[in-house]
Amino acid sequence: MVKIGIIGATGYTGLELLRFLFFHPNIEVSIVTSRQFAGKKISELFPFFEEYADLTLQPLELEKVVTQADLFFTALPHQVSMDIVPALLEREKKVIDLSADFRLKDADTYAAWYGPHKAPKWLEEAVYGLPELYAEEIKKARLVANPGCYPTTAILALAPFLTEALLDTHTIVIDAKSGVSGAGRGPKLATHFCETNEDMKAYKVGTHRHTPEIEQELSKLAGEEIKITFVPHLIPISRGMFTTVYSHLKKTLTTEEAYQLMASFYKEKTFVKVLPPSTIPQTIYVRGTNECHLGVKVDERTGRIIIMAAIDNLAKGASTQAVQNMNLMLGFPEETGLKTFPVFP
Amino acid sequence: MVKIGIIGATGYTGLELLRFLFFHPNIEVSIVTSRQFAGKKISELFPFFEEYADLTLQPLELEKVVTQADLFFTALPHQVSMDIVPALLEREKKVIDLSADFRLKDADTYAAWYGPHKAPKWLEEAVYGLPELYAEEIKKARLVANPGCYPTTAILALAPFLTEALLDTHTIVIDAKSGVSGAGRGPKLATHFCETNEDMKAYKVGTHRHTPEIEQELSKLAGEEIKITFVPHLIPISRGMFTTVYSHLKKTLTTEEAYQLMASFYKEKTFVKVLPPSTIPQTIYVRGTNECHLGVKVDERTGRIIIMAAIDNLAKGASTQAVQNMNLMLGFPEETGLKTFPVFP
Amino acid sequence: MVKIGIIGATGYTGLELLRFLFFHPNIEVSIVTSRQFAGKKISELFPFFEEYADLTLQPLELEKVVTQADLFFTALPHQVSMDIVPALLEREKKVIDLSADFRLKDADTYAAWYGPHKAPKWLEEAVYGLPELYAEEIKKARLVANPGCYPTTAILALAPFLTEALLDTHTIVIDAKSGVSGAGRGPKLATHFCETNEDMKAYKVGTHRHTPEIEQELSKLAGEEIKITFVPHLIPISRGMFTTVYSHLKKTLTTEEAYQLMASFYKEKTFVKVLPPSTIPQTIYVRGTNECHLGVKVDERTGRIIIMAAIDNLAKGASTQAVQNMNLMLGFPEETGLKTFPVFP
Amino acid sequence: MVKIGIIGATGYTGLELLRFLFFHPNIEVSIVTSRQFAGKKISELFPFFEEYADLTLQPLELEKVVTQADLFFTALPHQVSMDIVPALLEREKKVIDLSADFRLKDADTYAAWYGPHKAPKWLEEAVYGLPELYAEEIKKARLVANPGCYPTTAILALAPFLTEALLDTHTIVIDAKSGVSGAGRGPKLATHFCETNEDMKAYKVGTHRHTPEIEQELSKLAGEEIKITFVPHLIPISRGMFTTVYSHLKKTLTTEEAYQLMASFYKEKTFVKVLPPSTIPQTIYVRGTNECHLGVKVDERTGRIIIMAAIDNLAKGASTQAVQNMNLMLGFPEETGLKTFPVFP
Repeated sequence: MVKIGIIGATGYTGLELLRFLFFHPNIEVSIVTSRQFAGKKISELFPFFEEYADLTLQPLELEKVVTQADLFFTALPHQVSMDIVPALLEREKKVIDLSADFRLKDADTYAAWYGPHKAPKWLEEAVYGLPELYAEEIKKARLVANPGCYPTTAILALAPFLTEALLDTHTIVIDAKSGVSGAGRGPKLATHFCETNEDMKAYKVGTHRHTPEIEQELSKLAGEEIKITFVPHLIPISRGMFTTVYSHLKKTLTTEEAYQLMASFYKEKTFVKVLPPSTIPQTIYVRGTNECHLGVKVDERTGRIIIMAAIDNLAKGASTQAVQNMNLMLGFPEETGLKTFPVFP
Repeated sequence: MVKIGIIGATGYTGLELLRFLFFHPNIEVSIVTSRQFAGKKISELFPFFEEYADLTLQPLELEKVVTQADLFFTALPHQVSMDIVPALLEREKKVIDLSADFRLKDADTYAAWYGPHKAPKWLEEAVYGLPELYAEEIKKARLVANPGCYPTTAILALAPFLTEALLDTHTIVIDAKSGVSGAGRGPKLATHFCETNEDMKAYKVGTHRHTPEIEQELSKLAGEEIKITFVPHLIPISRGMFTTVYSHLKKTLTTEEAYQLMASFYKEKTFVKVLPPSTIPQTIYVRGTNECHLGVKVDERTGRIIIMAAIDNLAKGASTQAVQNMNLMLGFPEETGLKTFPVFP
Repeated sequence: MVKIGIIGATGYTGLELLRFLFFHPNIEVSIVTSRQFAGKKISELFPFFEEYADLTLQPLELEKVVTQADLFFTALPHQVSMDIVPALLEREKKVIDLSADFRLKDADTYAAWYGPHKAPKWLEEAVYGLPELYAEEIKKARLVANPGCYPTTAILALAPFLTEALLDTHTIVIDAKSGVSGAGRGPKLATHFCETNEDMKAYKVGTHRHTPEIEQELSKLAGEEIKITFVPHLIPISRGMFTTVYSHLKKTLTTEEAYQLMASFYKEKTFVKVLPPSTIPQTIYVRGTNECHLGVKVDERTGRIIIMAAIDNLAKGASTQAVQNMNLMLGFPEETGLKTFPVFP
Repeated sequence: MVKIGIIGATGYTGLELLRFLFFHPNIEVSIVTSRQFAGKKISELFPFFEEYADLTLQPLELEKVVTQADLFFTALPHQVSMDIVPALLEREKKVIDLSADFRLKDADTYAAWYGPHKAPKWLEEAVYGLPELYAEEIKKARLVANPGCYPTTAILALAPFLTEALLDTHTIVIDAKSGVSGAGRGPKLATHFCETNEDMKAYKVGTHRHTPEIEQELSKLAGEEIKITFVPHLIPISRGMFTTVYSHLKKTLTTEEAYQLMASFYKEKTFVKVLPPSTIPQTIYVRGTNECHLGVKVDERTGRIIIMAAIDNLAKGASTQAVQNMNLMLGFPEETGLKTFPVFP
């Protein structure tokens, strides 16, 4: 049994890790930390985690924490993660970082969007943890930068078409809709039930920090520098992300051809399901699972392709993708501990 | 007191008409019809409409109905409306039709998207009922074709920029998100609480019937033929529509300039509020009102403009817009009976 | 125009006051205060309140505030209200207090449930502001203690039967379900969207502070001391309260008789609607209105009466009830400014 | 591998069976039927059920169906189930019936609440499938009548106190709140998103058909005939049931004593969790699981006990309880295939 630590276990991504790791046959969660709830048992805070009765939340005292596991998930805010991750790596621990701190290759770009980077030397080594594209690198990685939820949908949606150079890359628009859990568990006016319920709105229009991450990865796939317009929206559901991507096509393509190309691209990928043209993705069909459902439609009237991606922002958009990365890093079959159906309805 | 009839009073748009018309000082609702509930009192079906205690739902027997009012709202499905509206017009009644049947000027386009048109001779006379653009025509109209909810948002969002020829019109993408009431009151699996709640999805991707209506109106504003990509999405709220419009700019514009242009365009329009760049529209802020809130942002990194429009799909997207049209047709101040605040939260 | 002040205008009850008072023909809101947002305009914080463009939120500097209005609504937390209300009264202002501070007649009871009372001398003079029962007293009052939302439903449900001595008063159980806005606008984990959405729970089981208020009023109506069991529940809707009251009957009664008795008791009351036995109250039918819908059913198998009350917790459960009280205190017809239909759906 | 059939597989309880049975190590689903969708693959209708790619929905042709499995779940409406179940039993199949048809021991009582019973001879043999109370009988049963969701909560809440004769049994009130999925998957106005969302209401007040089922089981536990008042409420969440039970105590008991008694009663029961007095059950903590969370509080002011039960109405209230029964009937450990955490948030 490999020993696993979760740094920041009581936020939504930490809880989602706990939900899946318990049933994983090859690992055990040996250490969990929490700034806010240190000293409490997980099962006290969450009665449904009775099976974790032995697990008491520790304060983040690095020297004590680091010895208690072999691989760590760091589920911390950006700019905090970079204070912890290097120390773990220096002790020969494997790390899967769920923050944004090691996702961008360029420290200056990081600085422009997030603030100064305090551990830039690790940026090159960090592997971008999108297993459908980078499984081989992830298997060998010490540090995996787990992707953001928005980038996960945008990249999976566009990869088949960018790698085939089918898109007019100046025309990519990404309109994304997210459930509220993406904003984290800390109480804020913006996540108050009554301020969100029965409402829809855009936010951080054209300025969301996931923009450079999306652009970095799309540019890599396309072999050219890509700039996109990205607008996230907040929708009153707890979990779920639906991303609609628009681009002009460089050559004519039918919907059926686009579907075949996409289906073929992801044929071997357990967790990406390309739906036939008659079926449209729905977030409820992936809720609580590691799946990404993709759909595609060519708008022949305008020469534009429309690609849709649905995930659970806390699962494939964060924690179960992190477990998928863990499986690769530890040499287990990719889907270990991750097979599940959505709770429908 | 002008006598008003509502044909199809027990659907959501009919109910929304009743909600506002009761408080209108210059009219009275004298006749309401319902296929399904004929013979019942409105106040029996909806206990909150006690004030309408005298109003019994009539079957749609045209000869009896037509004499009982001077102006009719027809809140019927498309292809049904066209059977009724001409008969009302021939009896010298004014009509505001909430269906799609008289919105398109071209009978062939109608046929391609909806089916054969049985009363094409009225298409030319019908005035497209968007009061912010066509108030003068509406004042003189006998037949107003009340706009669809999606077109209302798209047209109001784009009008200031199209009339100034600022957009690269081949690049317009309209990503719209609607609450469930837009699907009507008839029970369907698609509107079952459990199939919609906690879900997001696109539907009729690139094929929604509001597409030609949007294109007709945008083309008229731009003075050139425009084709757009339009993707509607279904969101689990009862009321509300949030539309995000994307286009490349033909010339450089700052966000502030775009805002000023938009604010100036709608300066005299009571029901369109252009929010300052620091504020983003929210559907909850217009719920239950005739208001459209607009926001704009220029993505200078990509040369693209992002325009956002929030309305209540049943109000400004249907019934209160219809009342606004009625006011114009009957010579009342445009805002009569329509001033209200949203029920927030 | 009577000048009205709102102390604590940016919480949900303050906003609900503003929503209704704007359309009131006989008053104007002349002063609004806010600790948190002092210096900002109401219309900056809430774009839909553009009509209040002249109204800037003031800090609560009593000397400056008190001169600016004739009647004040105090929408403050309990234990804070009692610091402000006496000073207003001493300046000959009328006050409608929305907190719990002046609802209990007995300072010791107050102390047992809320903490020490700092202004007990006003308890006797304060009139309990339930207009359906105490209109005459309210007309003459200087200080009205506006009822809690739970007590409003419980008292209106039970009054017709207690005054007729029909109930076995030892057997009263009050099971109440409230929307989330009752918890106020301050962000807390308990009101975080994701912690509330798709959840149901009881809270403060048998210990909620509205218990003594309910008991005081029921005892007064019955002419004997009554103790009840009261359990509130939190339900994921923004607004609405549904209260189900159970009691053994002292004498046999049919459902129809119970209905007739209740309907007769409230015959003259504009805002209480007793629904016929075939119809069950629904919160959506009173949302955003000052109405209370009541229903009654006798369970003949067990000799128990079941009474149901639905209100909007922010409206009849707080702010519109306060406006109703204001109308009485100022000599206006009770329903002035309060006629409205719910926004349905 | 035991072969399992599901009669009526595309309703919500059928789908919930499929969700859990796939991961059960000792059985395989070999036949599924659907009146409405016969001929379609499960995976066509529900893209997330790709793993059931081989499973095509059959029409309910009894002769063909019956040979294809050893144990059948019948997930049919009441009055339909009784046409099918006897035929299955006569072919030596084991049956777990999720309808109400075999829950009541007395055919006359059944007739009074549901209509005439066509297979009364099986009523005596049927075992009421509440495993926490009747595990031994279930192990030997051929026909298990799977309990209703409301009765599951009410009986589990009351059993510890009735068996100890602690309650004044004339004073039991059961106030229950259910999510919408309990109304089934068929589209109806009552389950339309917009008619339910943001609403609360009671329904079938004092007349719900689960009443005699609850009374039968409580009477058996108490050894005396018990009549209760039972009021169900509809709450806008997809899944979840929260039941609040009230009764006078016959002897004085503290909350702590009540808790100890309850905890001791369910000590060996894997799926019933008695929460300590400081913690209140929440439906979100059991959503999607076979767990029942119980809480208890003595209202010492009134001598009344308040017991709270939270379940997922489709899981412990229907399908996972049925799987628990299957495990017992087939000799597997009770929890096989049922261990899971709720999807929180």
